[in-house]
Amino acid sequence: MNIDYQSCITEIYNETRSLIGQGKVANYIPALAEVNPECYGIAIATLTGEIYKIGNADIEFSIQSISKVFLFARVFKVLGDELWTRVDREPSGSAFNSLVQLESENGIPRNPFINAGALVATDCLLSFCKNPIEDILYFARNLADNQKIHYDSRIVNSERATGFRNAALVNFMKSFGNIHNDIDSILDAYFHQCGIMMNCVDLAKSFLFLVNGGINSFNDEQILTRSQTKRANALMQTCGFYDESGEFAFCVGLPGKSGVGGGIVAIIPGLLAICVWAPELNSHGNSLVGMRALELFTTKTGISIF
Amino acid sequence: MNIDYQSCITEIYNETRSLIGQGKVANYIPALAEVNPECYGIAIATLTGEIYKIGNADIEFSIQSISKVFLFARVFKVLGDELWTRVDREPSGSAFNSLVQLESENGIPRNPFINAGALVATDCLLSFCKNPIEDILYFARNLADNQKIHYDSRIVNSERATGFRNAALVNFMKSFGNIHNDIDSILDAYFHQCGIMMNCVDLAKSFLFLVNGGINSFNDEQILTRSQTKRANALMQTCGFYDESGEFAFCVGLPGKSGVGGGIVAIIPGLLAICVWAPELNSHGNSLVGMRALELFTTKTGISIF
Amino acid sequence: MNIDYQSCITEIYNETRSLIGQGKVANYIPALAEVNPECYGIAIATLTGEIYKIGNADIEFSIQSISKVFLFARVFKVLGDELWTRVDREPSGSAFNSLVQLESENGIPRNPFINAGALVATDCLLSFCKNPIEDILYFARNLADNQKIHYDSRIVNSERATGFRNAALVNFMKSFGNIHNDIDSILDAYFHQCGIMMNCVDLAKSFLFLVNGGINSFNDEQILTRSQTKRANALMQTCGFYDESGEFAFCVGLPGKSGVGGGIVAIIPGLLAICVWAPELNSHGNSLVGMRALELFTTKTGISIF
Amino acid sequence: MNIDYQSCITEIYNETRSLIGQGKVANYIPALAEVNPECYGIAIATLTGEIYKIGNADIEFSIQSISKVFLFARVFKVLGDELWTRVDREPSGSAFNSLVQLESENGIPRNPFINAGALVATDCLLSFCKNPIEDILYFARNLADNQKIHYDSRIVNSERATGFRNAALVNFMKSFGNIHNDIDSILDAYFHQCGIMMNCVDLAKSFLFLVNGGINSFNDEQILTRSQTKRANALMQTCGFYDESGEFAFCVGLPGKSGVGGGIVAIIPGLLAICVWAPELNSHGNSLVGMRALELFTTKTGISIF
Repeated sequence: MNIDYQSCITEIYNETRSLIGQGKVANYIPALAEVNPECYGIAIATLTGEIYKIGNADIEFSIQSISKVFLFARVFKVLGDELWTRVDREPSGSAFNSLVQLESENGIPRNPFINAGALVATDCLLSFCKNPIEDILYFARNLADNQKIHYDSRIVNSERATGFRNAALVNFMKSFGNIHNDIDSILDAYFHQCGIMMNCVDLAKSFLFLVNGGINSFNDEQILTRSQTKRANALMQTCGFYDESGEFAFCVGLPGKSGVGGGIVAIIPGLLAICVWAPELNSHGNSLVGMRALELFTTKTGISIF
Repeated sequence: MNIDYQSCITEIYNETRSLIGQGKVANYIPALAEVNPECYGIAIATLTGEIYKIGNADIEFSIQSISKVFLFARVFKVLGDELWTRVDREPSGSAFNSLVQLESENGIPRNPFINAGALVATDCLLSFCKNPIEDILYFARNLADNQKIHYDSRIVNSERATGFRNAALVNFMKSFGNIHNDIDSILDAYFHQCGIMMNCVDLAKSFLFLVNGGINSFNDEQILTRSQTKRANALMQTCGFYDESGEFAFCVGLPGKSGVGGGIVAIIPGLLAICVWAPELNSHGNSLVGMRALELFTTKTGISIF
Repeated sequence: MNIDYQSCITEIYNETRSLIGQGKVANYIPALAEVNPECYGIAIATLTGEIYKIGNADIEFSIQSISKVFLFARVFKVLGDELWTRVDREPSGSAFNSLVQLESENGIPRNPFINAGALVATDCLLSFCKNPIEDILYFARNLADNQKIHYDSRIVNSERATGFRNAALVNFMKSFGNIHNDIDSILDAYFHQCGIMMNCVDLAKSFLFLVNGGINSFNDEQILTRSQTKRANALMQTCGFYDESGEFAFCVGLPGKSGVGGGIVAIIPGLLAICVWAPELNSHGNSLVGMRALELFTTKTGISIF
Repeated sequence: MNIDYQSCITEIYNETRSLIGQGKVANYIPALAEVNPECYGIAIATLTGEIYKIGNADIEFSIQSISKVFLFARVFKVLGDELWTRVDREPSGSAFNSLVQLESENGIPRNPFINAGALVATDCLLSFCKNPIEDILYFARNLADNQKIHYDSRIVNSERATGFRNAALVNFMKSFGNIHNDIDSILDAYFHQCGIMMNCVDLAKSFLFLVNGGINSFNDEQILTRSQTKRANALMQTCGFYDESGEFAFCVGLPGKSGVGGGIVAIIPGLLAICVWAPELNSHGNSLVGMRALELFTTKTGISIF
């Protein structure tokens, strides 16, 4: 394929800018609400080492739930298939923080990419890792090949001050016996993950290991086996976008993960990772402009896994 | 890729035969319960025209919900995106015949591959088609390039005699205004679809249009556009296996569709379609041996969309 | 107690008339939508034989779900406690026509006063009664001591033409094995019950057997035993007002039953039955003026079972 | 009525002792699991001052959810109808600690007698009361006219150590804005209430104010108005027994409240309060022997509010 990625993202950027204003910036915490809604960036990192970018691709933002992919990879690497005794791998069919399915399924979350599942994964992390807050940060830094990636303590504190739904989830799962460590420590690690700050270039680079059969091409570390990598990608495909995962598969057709900070990362196995950031969300909590930009990306390039 | 498909399916067939006896043949109607649980067949149809097969690949069986893919393609071809005003395209997260989500979502089914969604699609078919029962049969015959494909009237009658849950679904959706035609006619057409008889070779051939960008290679008819085809495949990927769709994506990583008759069809875009038939089901209503056989197929060939 | 019931209901009538206009007449069928929203009547029938009335107490209206009490009494009289193998006796906690709880409780309706429960009771009636439509009408006539009580065929036909939710309920319960007779016959009898026409005086008189330990004082027939009568009253107390049963117990404190035609009947065991009719409904489907009138009745008379 | 209550409860006691062994003592905390399952006591306190008792009516036990009535009375006395902006008054239709309805109803609990409702009531208590733990204990002491009533710190600590479901509930409601005070303080007061120790005589006496139009006859204090008292009794009638409230109304026909410690208190307005204690529970979490004893009580005495 000979695609001029720079022209491609430039076209997309220009065609979709006019959508800014149609969504709503996440406002459950001040630190997110204050983000400039006009920010918009796109970056592509290819397996062959090129970076293409446009707009605010170098401005860092709160990656929020995109961190669930790092967390999942970190825990899956260590636990392997044992992880599936603690969390399922089915789409949730409900809002990301619903307690209903958790109740009918005895405290086993639907998948690692909804809040409940990530809380269980954090609990797993705490079981094998003395310093889980440092651990995940270093993990993300190595994946993105950028040692400056850091936590935003203001976001972490805000998450903690408003995180009652997450506290409900973890207490609820503990009542079913599916949480083993101290609740406050789990929540602290979890809220930190939400507050990791990265930019579009960092994020695109950090997902390259999923493009590359599980190998971090910046240091040649094997994060996941080839088989585990395929499975991680399948999981992103079916569960990466809350109750809009079907919509994303339908319109975009790539494995990916979104966060309420307005970031979305998607990958084309064997080829590239792309990150779009635009803070305004649609009614499902996914970046409105980002969804459209990625739909255009697969349309324009003709690349699709389907 | 130079893969010896015949050796591959022979190996898989031999390695998985021992699983027969661990599942349970569908028994809600006599005509299904009487199927020999030891039947087992695999067939591959490639885009280049080869057929590979082993075991009972030439014995016809009730395709059941696999017909939902034909129905969907038929209706999507005519209505295009208008269809999405009547049915959603998200995984259901619940059992295939659940009324719960239908209630909370005002009579709009989650996707066209659960019963409620297929009943709405049948209602759509009736709105543009005078003889829907003939129409779908001819559609399947042309896709499979086999004019002998037929309905099994005993299965159709059994489905009708026990189909109270489906009657509940269609009445329920009608109460929300999401059914436009006569209820008995819809149910009649729907129960016929369940009773289409095909064998593994037929089914693999009939899914080739989804491998081939929407074109029926047997008569060069464009069934769906290239873009619609990608979307149909994405939909099978996220919704094709009831509440085990995530599991199938995770373990197999291919778009596909299963039926309670024990058939599963999966495709590799641009390459081939594969059908496995083994009547014993797992607890989710999918062929137990079929799931394992397809998992082995992607493992052995190394082919995956992820 | 020396209460001047005539003055009491006159006061209530005058104090509550101004509420007319705040509710909404049921409009799911034309025959109900056309009722004059300004109609308002109250009637009291005492165990000692007095009748007190005011307003439109002699105008007949569609009793709708109030008929569920007649149906329940008729079936409970014949089946006794066997009835409880088919229907439970707990408040539903959901809207009157919800399918959700039915699904999680395997087709056993919560109580005989929600639609699903009355459909099961109708199924029971059909099992022991050749002419169920005549049977229930004669039963109501005898209870009210009025042989002119009749069905309104226009309402019956309208109910049938729009009764898809009820058709869904009965098909759904049949799929669980909790319906034994022909579905169309059950629905026909059920829709007839909705179309029984009675006025406030009729209804107050027809509930006197529940005031009187189970004995129809007009012909001395023992409809229910004393113990069964207490239980019927307890059931009305906890389940008579859909998901507003708690509210009615809280504000009024009497056993009773409402219908979407705007009628409410309540009883004071050992003393009297009172019927209020005002067609405008509140958001829970109960007569807005009727709820307030009965609240005033217990406040003014100081009579309460609590 | 000239009823020999002593003979009556003696008969009941003798007739029902044989049921011991058919239920299961609550075992979620050791302090409850260790209770002798053979304990069985009954006490009646009449409005005229008599006490009748049999069996272990003087042995104290953990009153558990019966304390929700004290809490409700305490808060209703202060807040009046303002309370209903924070909690509803409808039967729950679900298990006592379900989060499902809470989710669909935006954090407003169904009634004050389920855990979620009592947690909200505790939050209300904390808003007007500096020392809520002392306050409720003194309130119970005054109602029972026994200053020795106390908390069992072992039970309080056990409740705290296992109370993750309650922590989930309060965090969940806080996420909807329906909790105003510090979560740990609310839980601490709540777990204390579960650990109040009283015997059958204490409990029968402490409910006399609900028999007596709201007045504590031991010190003539007006706890609730006459109207509020009727409403409190109606609430116990419809909501006092979790998802067995309908069953209790049906079989017993009296307002009452149960606890998982095996105690049940019921009242006959204007006449008496009766408490039964037998630790073994039925599948709904209510005392198996207690339910049957109270059913016999209304049968034998012929007393019923219906």
